[in-house]
Amino acid sequence: MTRQDLFEQIISKQSYLCVGLDADINRIPKHLLKYDDPIFEFNKQIIDATKDLCIAYKPNLAFYEALGPKGWLSLQKTLDYIPEEIFTIADAKRGDIGNTSRLYAKAFFETLNFDSVTVAPYMGEDSVMPFLEFENKWVILLALTSNKGSNDFQFTKQEDGQPLYEKVMRKAMTWGTSENLMFVVGATHPEKFTEIRSIAPEHFLLVPGVGAQGGDLAGLSKYGKNDLLGLLVNSSRGIIFASEGEDFAEAAGNAAKKLQIEMSGLI
Amino acid sequence: MTRQDLFEQIISKQSYLCVGLDADINRIPKHLLKYDDPIFEFNKQIIDATKDLCIAYKPNLAFYEALGPKGWLSLQKTLDYIPEEIFTIADAKRGDIGNTSRLYAKAFFETLNFDSVTVAPYMGEDSVMPFLEFENKWVILLALTSNKGSNDFQFTKQEDGQPLYEKVMRKAMTWGTSENLMFVVGATHPEKFTEIRSIAPEHFLLVPGVGAQGGDLAGLSKYGKNDLLGLLVNSSRGIIFASEGEDFAEAAGNAAKKLQIEMSGLI
Repeated sequence: MTRQDLFEQIISKQSYLCVGLDADINRIPKHLLKYDDPIFEFNKQIIDATKDLCIAYKPNLAFYEALGPKGWLSLQKTLDYIPEEIFTIADAKRGDIGNTSRLYAKAFFETLNFDSVTVAPYMGEDSVMPFLEFENKWVILLALTSNKGSNDFQFTKQEDGQPLYEKVMRKAMTWGTSENLMFVVGATHPEKFTEIRSIAPEHFLLVPGVGAQGGDLAGLSKYGKNDLLGLLVNSSRGIIFASEGEDFAEAAGNAAKKLQIEMSGLI
Repeated sequence: MTRQDLFEQIISKQSYLCVGLDADINRIPKHLLKYDDPIFEFNKQIIDATKDLCIAYKPNLAFYEALGPKGWLSLQKTLDYIPEEIFTIADAKRGDIGNTSRLYAKAFFETLNFDSVTVAPYMGEDSVMPFLEFENKWVILLALTSNKGSNDFQFTKQEDGQPLYEKVMRKAMTWGTSENLMFVVGATHPEKFTEIRSIAPEHFLLVPGVGAQGGDLAGLSKYGKNDLLGLLVNSSRGIIFASEGEDFAEAAGNAAKKLQIEMSGLI
């Protein structure tokens, strides 16, 4: 999928919403536990209720790994169920020495057929490149994350005065292009989007932290969008757990609709 | 397992070797492919051949994830087969926002019952703390990795003059203690061990990069060991793929024995 493909979806759906499929077995509605595969059933109903309102789905791998082999089967079925035109993100935050990163890339891009995977930058170029070598696939590199701990290392200034996240972005832009590399920038840092756009005017940004984490959609959209919109704004818990009752899918659809309407006014 | 327990094993086995169970399905001997679970069969024979020569096993999760649900079953069976007194390391390099890191911790510490997990520091305190909150379990935090990409960010000086890996270590030492926190320090940086010991004199270090990656065992041991030895030196490919024929287990045992003998002279 190209940037242009993403942009066309954004225009046609009037949305740049990504729905985080963080299907926590301890939080999904109890009546689903009678199904053979409660996690897949939950995701299926969430996808049915939101697929016309979003342009991407992002399962966080932790919620599937926590269930062992069963979790992988639920994830595989979920991936197969997502409509082909919708962008898929393996939120895995992987990164390892070269031969090992290559295997992770195969797991996510070939075995599971994700369009993209989130990658952690700490181990540098040879930990990221194996992901960038797959055609028509994307790396979404952690730059400025949405959590409190982003203050510990990401903001600390380097000897040359730039904060670490900026150094990460500039360096990574020598490894990939705006057609195979995106950055994670948390919605909890709306004041940073102008600066981030001055570093990476063309790259898509994956923006977590709207909803449960309290990010400001209007602010970040104003300063973060570019000619091809350039934003995938994620909400997980705020949508999928909008209700924990039997009406969970309807409630998720309503929560997604609310964000989509807000987004349509910001495009 | 405590530092004292590790030290007692080191003394009794005269070894501080960790064997990396990176059971690549494309590299294991072909005659094993006839088994129901070739990966487990491979690991089982490697464990039988090396368990008296090493004090830890470290499966890298990538090699299991690449196989999907089957890979998780092989990993679970491998974990169950490792003798209880041997320290186990999930080489996963995870790290995510708090509620997600907690799930990873449950997956590795409870579902799979590993003693420890490797964690990436980029997302800061709330991404690491959930792992540290499990009793009798260990976090092994990436500090200075063995790969070429360690030069990209880990060595770059911060505004206050210290390199990033040093900042990571000092900060993390305020989160955990020498009884639940270790650091990854690559064998490819033997000249750094004196400095690293001045920062963290008491913490155990997990040292990859001996063998296939070319690290120097005598040099790093001289400058890296402390009162409780304080080192877990890992070799993966150099041991488990010492032969790719039917004699692979015997060859692995011989390769491990060679390192153990060298280590016994360095303790």
